[in-house]
Amino acid sequence: LSLRIALDAMGGDHGAPVVVAAAVELLKRHRNVHLILVGDQSTIRKELSNLGAKESDSLSIHHCTQVVAMDELPSVALRSKKDSSMRVAIDLVKKGEAQACVSAGNTGALMATARFVLKMLPGIDRPAICTALPTMRGHCHMLDLGANIDSGPEALFQFGLMGSILASAVDGIDRPTVGLLNIGEEEIKGSEYIKEAAKLLEQSDINYYGFVEGDDIYKGTVDVVVSDGFVGNVALKTSEGIARMVKQFLKEAFTSSLRGKLSAVVAKPVLRAFGNRIDPGRYNGASLVGLQGIVVKSHGNTDAKAFANAIDVAIKEVDKDVPQRIAKELESMVVERQAV
Amino acid sequence: LSLRIALDAMGGDHGAPVVVAAAVELLKRHRNVHLILVGDQSTIRKELSNLGAKESDSLSIHHCTQVVAMDELPSVALRSKKDSSMRVAIDLVKKGEAQACVSAGNTGALMATARFVLKMLPGIDRPAICTALPTMRGHCHMLDLGANIDSGPEALFQFGLMGSILASAVDGIDRPTVGLLNIGEEEIKGSEYIKEAAKLLEQSDINYYGFVEGDDIYKGTVDVVVSDGFVGNVALKTSEGIARMVKQFLKEAFTSSLRGKLSAVVAKPVLRAFGNRIDPGRYNGASLVGLQGIVVKSHGNTDAKAFANAIDVAIKEVDKDVPQRIAKELESMVVERQAV
Repeated sequence: LSLRIALDAMGGDHGAPVVVAAAVELLKRHRNVHLILVGDQSTIRKELSNLGAKESDSLSIHHCTQVVAMDELPSVALRSKKDSSMRVAIDLVKKGEAQACVSAGNTGALMATARFVLKMLPGIDRPAICTALPTMRGHCHMLDLGANIDSGPEALFQFGLMGSILASAVDGIDRPTVGLLNIGEEEIKGSEYIKEAAKLLEQSDINYYGFVEGDDIYKGTVDVVVSDGFVGNVALKTSEGIARMVKQFLKEAFTSSLRGKLSAVVAKPVLRAFGNRIDPGRYNGASLVGLQGIVVKSHGNTDAKAFANAIDVAIKEVDKDVPQRIAKELESMVVERQAV
Repeated sequence: LSLRIALDAMGGDHGAPVVVAAAVELLKRHRNVHLILVGDQSTIRKELSNLGAKESDSLSIHHCTQVVAMDELPSVALRSKKDSSMRVAIDLVKKGEAQACVSAGNTGALMATARFVLKMLPGIDRPAICTALPTMRGHCHMLDLGANIDSGPEALFQFGLMGSILASAVDGIDRPTVGLLNIGEEEIKGSEYIKEAAKLLEQSDINYYGFVEGDDIYKGTVDVVVSDGFVGNVALKTSEGIARMVKQFLKEAFTSSLRGKLSAVVAKPVLRAFGNRIDPGRYNGASLVGLQGIVVKSHGNTDAKAFANAIDVAIKEVDKDVPQRIAKELESMVVERQAV
């Protein structure tokens, strides 16, 4: 029995050309995966034919007529785009015709639609956005990255729980360490809500490490970094910004002088290996956790290779049955608390 | 008449060797600056003699007996370290014997002591920490970086005002653009307190740009980036973390293979120029703004060159009379509001 993933073929900054190419690429390295390209049939067929590919046992098209624009308000998308590639891909998960969906579309619309169609797991209010980030020691998972702002202690605790289960399932780590993002100044250390979240994490079965600071994310101090969505989003975007700047400065160093240009010729393979290593596309694919179903968000400005990485994230989560594991843990916690 | 700066000669991870060397370096490129080395006289004399330097018209020693430890609680430092190099350096500013002080010591203790000794400007509750950061277009100023958490709209507005005056004075920009750090998700965009701060900034004379996101910091979208201290601290620390990781990966790329090593020989000057450009020491020296006096915080783990950069920041602020400018603006604002 193959694993079925629905792809929002029209979403993202580049739409069908990127998603179709990613699907074709991915199927070269996966057996037992069936991809459903959701979107305008003729557009998708054209892209397939450009690539010398076609519909097959592992690749089908699910036609629909609408597209959610990248700047469309989530509420508008939810109300008026019921036949959009994004909505239909999520509907396929709801109906059990796919086990996960992947979209590079508008984050807000994706969250709102996923929440409306799939519903949240009991006890969870909103999906949290979780992604893997490279570290000096491998990678870590960080959440929330912008779905929830002003999260209270209970929400932060749930992020820790969900992140821990995700890291355990996806990376096969026995008891992933969980750190709570905070700042280092003594005596004004952290807000009250963070201290309370720390207590909840300490009292739980989670392998709670303690407070971590911004630089710990990339040091690889912990397997899971927990923060409010506002803070997490700023940390992620700031990281993207500085990585881009460093790349730009490096490029300038190797192109602004004759010596630089000559060095670049010699160092080209080294620089390329370095570039690949810090390529954010390697870590493309953020999970919307806390839903009754698997939804993976690709960066909007993705290329085919990076979009294929996002499909890989979805495959891993289906394989490890992440939502079911989270649901079970949440349930046992509720039972424990009722027992107290 | 020369400008007088008091240096906490015992503060920071490395203490006197770094601070004394920085002072000697700095005096080579500045006339009309008098530096006061505050700390243990015999230790400082020894460091001076190691460098072949001595006390002079532009360099004096102010002896004191205590040192604030890097991990000392601010309240303890304040109570029991009245003859510490940090405290005495700030006292010299209070007494008018110096126009500014620079310390690489414990941030919490420095803030608490500066606030206690120098007092805040009318209407400001706590100092905000402001530093310059490199951008793709030059640099920007960001505040608060960790002195204030859970800042309300009024505090964010004050950060914008103080940052704007600082950038204008120090960089000679006519009307610096000010951006408010926020996240990009539609419909959950920002917390209420940020929206209210935006209104205050819009209604003021400040050249308010609007919301910016994490990546805008390094794009150089605005001259001044305003955020709550918690968020700002996470952004800064995250940046340090990823910059360190990228540097490490680059080093590994150029040392892990024979090809890499050979390339490194050729590319050495290029890599060095690049390293200097992203060296955080270039931007060492964070201002504690909002005080009735100039206090500059150096990174604790500074070298002499970076500490000298922090002294440069203090010199610029003295030269442009930053606290007086901020005080004037605050006063005129109060008058305006009373008129309404």
